Amino acid sequence: MRSEIAQQPEALRRTIAELLPLRPEIEALGRRTKQVLFIARGSSDNAAVYGGYLLQTHTGRMATLGSPSIATTYGARVDLSGVLAVAISQSGRTEEIVETMRWAADCGAATVGITNGAGSPLATEADVALVTQAGNEVSVPATKTYTTQLAALAVLALGLGADLDTSDLERVPDAVEQLLEAPSEPLDEIVERMAATQGAVISGRGTVLSTALETALKLKEACYLHAMGLSTADLLHGPIAVLGSHTPTLLMAAPSGPVLEGTVSLAERARLADSPVFGFGGGQALAEASDVHVPVPDLPEWLAPLHLIVPAQLLTESLARRSGLDPDVPRGLNKVTQTA
Amino acid sequence: MRSEIAQQPEALRRTIAELLPLRPEIEALGRRTKQVLFIARGSSDNAAVYGGYLLQTHTGRMATLGSPSIATTYGARVDLSGVLAVAISQSGRTEEIVETMRWAADCGAATVGITNGAGSPLATEADVALVTQAGNEVSVPATKTYTTQLAALAVLALGLGADLDTSDLERVPDAVEQLLEAPSEPLDEIVERMAATQGAVISGRGTVLSTALETALKLKEACYLHAMGLSTADLLHGPIAVLGSHTPTLLMAAPSGPVLEGTVSLAERARLADSPVFGFGGGQALAEASDVHVPVPDLPEWLAPLHLIVPAQLLTESLARRSGLDPDVPRGLNKVTQTA
Repeated sequence: MRSEIAQQPEALRRTIAELLPLRPEIEALGRRTKQVLFIARGSSDNAAVYGGYLLQTHTGRMATLGSPSIATTYGARVDLSGVLAVAISQSGRTEEIVETMRWAADCGAATVGITNGAGSPLATEADVALVTQAGNEVSVPATKTYTTQLAALAVLALGLGADLDTSDLERVPDAVEQLLEAPSEPLDEIVERMAATQGAVISGRGTVLSTALETALKLKEACYLHAMGLSTADLLHGPIAVLGSHTPTLLMAAPSGPVLEGTVSLAERARLADSPVFGFGGGQALAEASDVHVPVPDLPEWLAPLHLIVPAQLLTESLARRSGLDPDVPRGLNKVTQTA
Repeated sequence: MRSEIAQQPEALRRTIAELLPLRPEIEALGRRTKQVLFIARGSSDNAAVYGGYLLQTHTGRMATLGSPSIATTYGARVDLSGVLAVAISQSGRTEEIVETMRWAADCGAATVGITNGAGSPLATEADVALVTQAGNEVSVPATKTYTTQLAALAVLALGLGADLDTSDLERVPDAVEQLLEAPSEPLDEIVERMAATQGAVISGRGTVLSTALETALKLKEACYLHAMGLSTADLLHGPIAVLGSHTPTLLMAAPSGPVLEGTVSLAERARLADSPVFGFGGGQALAEASDVHVPVPDLPEWLAPLHLIVPAQLLTESLARRSGLDPDVPRGLNKVTQTA
């Protein structure tokens, strides 16, 4: 896992260079469709959460998450005319996702497949395939296949006409490199303080909700932690009661943007509840409201999920090892998940 | 909370009787629209999960969950022509939800408001208001306002042409009554076995995913438990590693239906991981795969969420009291949540 985390700058560089030229093909699909429906599970589903915010805030298209069981378990027929179905799967071979993409096409949708599996059914059967260039990923927890999926979604948004600057996307690999070379002290301190805890709340809002959900998934699968990933808004609707001295709060935020203020307020509420607050990103305001703060590079908000997850990956890997676990091979899991 | 749980048969009877006559108005909105977008938070969002499965499996319409922050925080403009936006809020006064419903109308959507607040902005401004008849709810954790929201969603599905039998819906209040009078032994045993745990996984799939998510929310807000609500399919994509002797698995299932087999397999996998398995519903198959089993009435699968949540509400209330907490007034919460 550690070596695959370190391969991300190169994986992102290759993926961005490979996929940006596909924008005209995406644009053509965009002309035939009006909205986007994501089809994914696990880390890929967290990537889809990013895609949903990105497309809705920057392309004016409705973009929401589908439920594969509608297709695979219930066999229901749904009118998907005018829909661009975007299926995301690391391997491109998870049957549930491949089957749901076929179902979507059958229901009238155009399709995009985002996968690291060149030659997989997802890549060969989609109307347009965005094949990420992460190289082979061996560790069960996804790292470089996740961040390259996010890069593919950024290209998707650009192809669908997002009012965003491509050159900012091209700055991401360097930003990730910078994070990998950053001093390890803040993360070391968080690892020590989390070593004795059994559960944690991980929260973010808007584009970085994806980062909170993905961090919670990583901490569950590699550290066996009771990690609850929630949007900061949903946290206020009940779950905030769970915060206390034994339940730390990990907060994710872009260095700027409209959700930052609410995230800082949440940090203050969590500290009032005696919950240790570990802030990732969010600039000076979140640093001041956190017990321990992990700084991130100053890229625009829409790209924050592509780098903000990196310190969380490093945290997961270190915390697993600190707990005597092997993060590469969590109990009960295989690399390609098949669900009925 | 206990007395409000007990008021559910009456609340459901009144709500169903009041709302069924509104089917023609819903049908008229259905003719103007093609798909549904839900707008909700907290328990109302869990109700929306039910609505999404119900509409997609029984009306052939796409039905997905929106992200209020797209409207309220990002102020983005999204093309919602042909969309029926269904906003759900107990009070009908949560500003974020009211504001997002207004935004949806402004973006071209027709609107339905589902609320217990007669005269609230949600009820007065929606094109069609489905006002639930739960009576005043005082306890912070929603119970009767949640199940009556589910009843309203069932009426919505019937109004949009679902191939379902109205008389089955009318049998729900009696089924809930039956559950309230059932022997308390299984729940008492689960309470005792959960009293020492800090976290739990609560899982279900398809229509009853809503029940798993709502149970997890209840256990978080009233018992401060690290309760992780997940679909059984998502659980297999990583989080299953968290299961162990200190992390029980609560499984929700309708007595029959296409997801039952997968839920029973998951029970078997959880027991192999030494996780205590508490089964709710699912008939004989789930009973045999569970350490403790709570039976539920034999209603069709599409109605399971309306009664299956009742034992989970009772469990939450008992477990909170067993832990010395007052379930009516969890720390850090108010009855009407306002999020920026």
